[in-house]
This record gives sequence, C-alpha cells and structure tokens, in this order.
Amino acid sequence: MIGDRLTAIVGAPHLDLGAAVADDDCHDEALGVAPVRPAAVVRPGSTAEVAAVVVAAGELGVPVTARGSGTGLSGAAVPVEGGIVVSFERMASILELDVANQVAVVEPGVTLAELDAALAPLGLVYPVFPGEQSASLGGNVSTNAGGMRAVKYGVTRHHVLGLEAVLGTGEVISTGGRFVKATSGYDLTQLIVGSEGTLALVTRAVLRLHPRPGHQSTLLAPFATVEQVAEAVPPVVASGVGPLLVEYIDMISMAGITANAGIDLGIPQAVRDAALAYLVVVLEGHHEDRVAEDTEALAVQLAELGALDVYVLPDHAGHDLISAREHAFWASKAAGADDIVDAVVPRASIPAYLADVGRLAAATGSLVVGCGHAGDGNVHLSVFQADPDVRHGLLHDILAAAVALGGAVSGEHGIGTAKLASYADLEDPVKLALMRRIKTAFDPHGILNPGTVFAADASLPAANRGARP
Amino acid sequence: MIGDRLTAIVGAPHLDLGAAVADDDCHDEALGVAPVRPAAVVRPGSTAEVAAVVVAAGELGVPVTARGSGTGLSGAAVPVEGGIVVSFERMASILELDVANQVAVVEPGVTLAELDAALAPLGLVYPVFPGEQSASLGGNVSTNAGGMRAVKYGVTRHHVLGLEAVLGTGEVISTGGRFVKATSGYDLTQLIVGSEGTLALVTRAVLRLHPRPGHQSTLLAPFATVEQVAEAVPPVVASGVGPLLVEYIDMISMAGITANAGIDLGIPQAVRDAALAYLVVVLEGHHEDRVAEDTEALAVQLAELGALDVYVLPDHAGHDLISAREHAFWASKAAGADDIVDAVVPRASIPAYLADVGRLAAATGSLVVGCGHAGDGNVHLSVFQADPDVRHGLLHDILAAAVALGGAVSGEHGIGTAKLASYADLEDPVKLALMRRIKTAFDPHGILNPGTVFAADASLPAANRGARP
Repeated sequence: MIGDRLTAIVGAPHLDLGAAVADDDCHDEALGVAPVRPAAVVRPGSTAEVAAVVVAAGELGVPVTARGSGTGLSGAAVPVEGGIVVSFERMASILELDVANQVAVVEPGVTLAELDAALAPLGLVYPVFPGEQSASLGGNVSTNAGGMRAVKYGVTRHHVLGLEAVLGTGEVISTGGRFVKATSGYDLTQLIVGSEGTLALVTRAVLRLHPRPGHQSTLLAPFATVEQVAEAVPPVVASGVGPLLVEYIDMISMAGITANAGIDLGIPQAVRDAALAYLVVVLEGHHEDRVAEDTEALAVQLAELGALDVYVLPDHAGHDLISAREHAFWASKAAGADDIVDAVVPRASIPAYLADVGRLAAATGSLVVGCGHAGDGNVHLSVFQADPDVRHGLLHDILAAAVALGGAVSGEHGIGTAKLASYADLEDPVKLALMRRIKTAFDPHGILNPGTVFAADASLPAANRGARP
Repeated sequence: MIGDRLTAIVGAPHLDLGAAVADDDCHDEALGVAPVRPAAVVRPGSTAEVAAVVVAAGELGVPVTARGSGTGLSGAAVPVEGGIVVSFERMASILELDVANQVAVVEPGVTLAELDAALAPLGLVYPVFPGEQSASLGGNVSTNAGGMRAVKYGVTRHHVLGLEAVLGTGEVISTGGRFVKATSGYDLTQLIVGSEGTLALVTRAVLRLHPRPGHQSTLLAPFATVEQVAEAVPPVVASGVGPLLVEYIDMISMAGITANAGIDLGIPQAVRDAALAYLVVVLEGHHEDRVAEDTEALAVQLAELGALDVYVLPDHAGHDLISAREHAFWASKAAGADDIVDAVVPRASIPAYLADVGRLAAATGSLVVGCGHAGDGNVHLSVFQADPDVRHGLLHDILAAAVALGGAVSGEHGIGTAKLASYADLEDPVKLALMRRIKTAFDPHGILNPGTVFAADASLPAANRGARP
C-alpha cells in the first residue's frame, strides 16, 4: 500500500522498502540512540513530490522523518518505526548565488562543503561552520546548527532569511525573502528553524552571505585552570576585537584531539605539564595589518588575564588545530566516550557550570572532559561512564545544572530523541503545551517526526506516531 | 463590571475608565488611523498584575491592547472598541545590566533613550536605533523595530535573547536566556517578536548588547539619479567595510528634512541643482585610524560609482544630518504627507522598485518622495495624495509592487491596522490560515489585539474581537 503510493510519486528507482533500506538510512550520529528501520525511504526530486509524499503519509497515517546527510547528534533523523524517511539527496542543487543581495538559494541536500566551495571564488562566505562540512543545509536549518564561529556571526538561525517548506498538511509555503528585516506577520522562518523536522519539511532555503575576509590569525593560550580560561572569555569578547571564535579546550580533550589528528603544536613540555586548559582565539579581517595589530593587543590581554604563555600559531598549525577541534566529536567517539553533552549557559557562568559538572562527575566516579564554544557559553562535554543507569542520571543532572544557571539543554545539537526525556523534565509544562499546540497548527495529523523534541501526542492515532499496535 | 475587576487588580489610581481615558492613550502615530476610546486603560505594576488583567479580560470577553510609548506607525497600539489598554508606563525599570554577558534585562516601558543613557558609561550599546528614542522597548519588541543601523547590526529580532510574556490564557512564560544560541524546543522568543501584541504581552526582555565603538565618520554623496544611488549600495555593502548605515535620501526629502531641522550641509548650489538623490554612509569603529582609512577608501569607491562629489562631514554636521534623517517622519508629517510606506525589497531591487513607484505616482497624479535604509532594502516613502480613494489604491499598488519584487509589505513599522487590508490581499492564504492557528495556540479566546495583523476571527464571540453588537 505504502509502496504503491510512494512509487507513483517518486518512481521505483527513488524508493527503498523494508529490508531494501540501506543501513546508513536507519541512524544518525547520536551516541546511544538505536537505529530504526523505517517502512520506506523516498528520494523525491522536487518540492511537489515532497508535498505529495506528505499528503500520502497523512492519508495513510504514517510518520515522516526528513533526512539530510545524517550527521545529526541528537537522533532527530533516526526513522520512526513504520515510517517514511524523506531523503533529500536528490534535492541538492545550489539554485542561485545572488551576489548583489549577498544571498544563496539552496535545496536542502546541499552540503556545507559544496556551498563553501562555490562561494570562495566569489569572495563570499556562509559563515556557519558547525564542524562537519558534509552536513546538509537542510539538516543545519532543522537543528539550527551552530559551531565555533557563532561568537562572531551567530548561528544558522541568523542566516536563514527565508524558506520554502511543506507543512504536515502537504501545503507548501514560502517565508521571508532576500532581506534581513520585515514585520509582516509572524516570523514563520524562525519558527521552522531548529524545529527538528517536527513542523515542516524544508525544501529550499534563502541564506545570508557575508564578504569573505582574507586574513586570519590563531592564538593559543594555555592556562593553569579551566576556571581561569572561562573567566578570560568575557573580557576578550568585550574588548571589541570581534573574535571569529573563542574556544576552550581542557587538557585531556586537547591531548585527544591533537593525537587523533596527529598534530604537534610545539608547546614546551613544561607548559603542557602546567596547563589544565587552553583558550583558542581566532581573529579574521579584510586587512592583514589590522589582524596583526589586533593579534598583538589580544596576546597582551591574554597574558594579563593569566595565560601561562601565548602562542600565535603559524597559519598551517592554526588551521590544523581548528580542524582537529572541529572533529572533537570523532576524537571523543574514538576514545570511547559513552555520550556527549552540548548544553549552553550564559558565557559568564561557564566557570560555575564546569565546577558543577566536576562535582557531578566525581560523585558518580565518571570522567567528564570537554571543550566548548566559550564565547557563546556552549559547553561540549564527553561523558565516560559505562554503567547506563549511572550515566543516564549523570547526563540528566549535567543538563539540569545548565538549566539551573539560566542555560538550556542543547546549544546546537537539538533535543532530538536523545535528550527528549530530560528536556520534558526540565522545560516549563506551560511552554511544552504551547509548543504542542503550535505543532498541531503546522501538522494536524501529527505525522512529522513524532517523538522528536517532545513525546508524540498520545491523543493521535497510534500509527501516526509510529507506535506499535 | 470591568471597572470593579480591574480596580481589584491594579488599584483605582492606576485605572482610567471611559471618558477619563486620556486622549493620548487613544491613538498611536499612524497617519490615517482614527483614534478609538477604549473602555479602560490599566497601568499594571507587575507581571502578576498583567496576567490577572488578561485572565479577567478572557473571562469578560474583552479585547486587550498593549501600549508602550505610543510611537508606533501602523495603528497596532490603537485601542479596540470596548477593550482594555494595558499601558506599561509603570513597568519601566532597567532590571539589570549584565556586563560580563553583555546583556540588559528590561521591563517593557523602558525607552530607548533611557537604556542608551545607562549603557554609554559602561562602553556598551544596544544598537537598534529606529529613530524615535522615546519609543519603549516593549513596543520595539512587538513591532520588531528596525532603523538605520540594521545594515550592520540587524533589527530588534536579532537582539532579543529572551522574553517573559503573558499568553492570552493569562499564563506566564519565560523564553530564551542570556545566550545567543540554543536548539531546545521551538523559538518562542522569535515568534513573539514582531507579533504586534497579538500573541502575548511582553513583560520583560533580555537584550543583547555590544561593545560601543568610539569613532564614527559620515560620508555624503550626491548622485545625479536615484537609480545611481540605489545601484551604488550593493558594492558598498560588498566591500567588507561593514558600514553602520547606508541611507538614500531623494532630493525633495533631503530638502525637507534639512529644512525641518534647520541645518545647512554646505553643499554648493551647483551640486545641489544636479543631485536628484543622496547616499549617506556612516562608518564606525574602535580605532580612529582605521575609520579614517576606511572613510578614504569608501570616498574613492563612491566617486568611482558615479557620485557627483563626496563630502566627509564634520562630526557635528554628520550628527545633525543623521538626527534629521531619524526625524524624517516628522518632517514628512509637517509637510502634509497623507500617508507613509515602509516596504522592503531585496537590496538590489531598489532601483526597479523606485521606478515602479514613480510610474504609479505619475499615473495617479500623486507626489511620492522618500528616503530609506538602502543597505537593507527598506524603502520609506511619503505619499501626498489628498483623495482618499485614489490614495488607498495607490498605497495598495505600491505595496503590491514590493511583494512582486520578492519583498514584504512592511520592513519595520508592522502591519498593525493600517496595512491590514493590503496584507490580507497580498499574503498567501495558506500562511494567513497557519498564522491564525498559531494565534489560537497562544490566545484561544482571541482577546489579544484582535483586528491587528489580520482581521479578527469571525468565529469568536463578538465581544472578544471588539465588534459592536
């Protein structure tokens, strides 16, 4: 039944059913979320086909999960039992690079790497670098992807000017446009960004671009304690130097990511022995002399803030370090981390948060190490604790500590399915109820990625939410 | 009945009923929107009182309109017949200036001028300057206020990190926090921003601040045609110089705003005779020498782009010109303008848009002049056409022309009640229906500013939407 309907829409070559579904389409990169084999994977070639699939799913009462590159870290792209995965691998064209308006119009399957390669020759940049360049822009929009450059440029949300999207009704809407401001009705664009496929399927995005600065410099400052690193962040941000990124990396994570990438930063052993954490700051600009002048001033400031030393890395070493940091997740996974956390807290609360995390780790006999986008308060932790019950309790407490400091459960990975239980426990029930009503406004049948962000609506037919009979 | 309920909540001194309502509370600054006397004006002193008023209004079936400083230009703060105005004049405290996190926490009645005065000594700035410094931050949030600096900093939306707000149910929610990134549920903050009081009443805002640059320079470049000015904008933005503002002002508007402000820019008569329009660019920075160097480079670029001449204005003259431009609305009103437009189009489409507007003006024997935030495609027009029927048709056609070019009906003033009919006509019915469902999710009784943004829901009780029996 599903097979016939979907074949009629996308054609047999673009449909996998049951056992024919590729293993890769059954999971994303979230640790600890089990793969699920969907009833079908479709690869539509147009917005009209996506809309037809959603209409069919609504009529059949079958859940729909959108899939980009599958690089998500929260389980939001893990299929729902009995559901349909809509893969955007055939909708992967850069439709337009509009230089005069500094706008790119892309289909959801375009990867960050592809877009960057197309923009570099034009002297433009889409400045969201969440670390995994094979990630798709559709996935980035759905998770409001962030990354290291958020302290300067903001996150995906700040660069999505407009969307084309298919509602749960199968209706297609276009939101926003090639402009940064409008007050003309509710901002549907921003509502869909970060909604993890639960409100609509994004079929096109209008993205804001920026002039591409030609010069960079990377400073590396070891500190005696993680707290000192964290305390150095607000003054660096306040200096007006406008850093591209401000990262902290603790000692163990630094050892892990440099070893994983096979790089040697040439830091003397004595400094390495004394350093419990590192601050990495990258500056960029259109003028080489200004970047050099700011680098000099920042080095002085970091020394005054207590750095054990300050290294201005040669270009290749700076690039290698940032690249290694971008792959911290893989280093962590290779080291056997049992789970990861990407909570966000107010920037100035990072020291207090890391102290809380240290206490929670010690109390449970766990190893919790990390690095993070210190400039914007987004802390990334790797949790090593083999006992699942202890681990689940620890993870929950680590997230609760962030919320208690005025933070949020996830800075950029999303709630997905992985953090659903903690989020449900830590979020205001009034807001959760409001979000459910908003979901119903977009998706009256409850078929769009049910069980993601919050539990599927129990009042809906069981099939729609992928529940087994 | 209403009087007793409201007196019990806010106390008699903070309540005006019927004829005792001040004339000032019956209107905003929208041209052509008639004042309406509400049943009551309340001035609550706390979020709890606001919530109690909303609960009472829901039970009584009475519309509620939020009011800040009343400087809006779309009629969104004009009361609803028989309704309650919630004035935030007593909730006007700066609750916290959090320097480490570069965040201000304010009540809705705080004005832009008050916040700026408090931030300047700290070396910080809230960079949204919509022109009217007596405007309240609550009003700014509700209309997603923009202004001249949006080309560098974005608009209100980009600086609201979190909100406390009262839903139409009387429930109070807190959204976001002191961080720029999160993917933890739907972005309720961004949904409320720009919703013109139809989704919730904002009782507190967490605002993003920036280091306050100490140096500015102002360039004024007359051009022979408006089209040349508009065509110069994309290259200036693309240069990477990061201008604080990029404004175009046509000849008639320039004469009007300088005369209204009593300033003389010292431009030779021969240049003035040849100039049909002016480009104003302001640069700012933390380093005086860099601002000077960029000013020089920009002057060369503007000359190459066809400017008749380029003037780097002395500080006081630059300040006077920008101040006069900020008050363009008042100059326009003083000159007898019958209505104003603030449509937005893609930046590169401004020449085409102004050509369309010129044709529409000529065809109806109207005078349409203007200036605008050229850097972000936001065109401000003053329309002189005394015949109301001709004017309404012309206004509609001017807005339709913006939408046809991929723009939007309002860049920053909002739809309010003034542009409701055109918006309803030009917006996708699928999106309008979705927005109505979203409104219902926030405001099930339909009491929050009914008849603003879109027509009140006819299925609701007549009293709730302020309809006369």
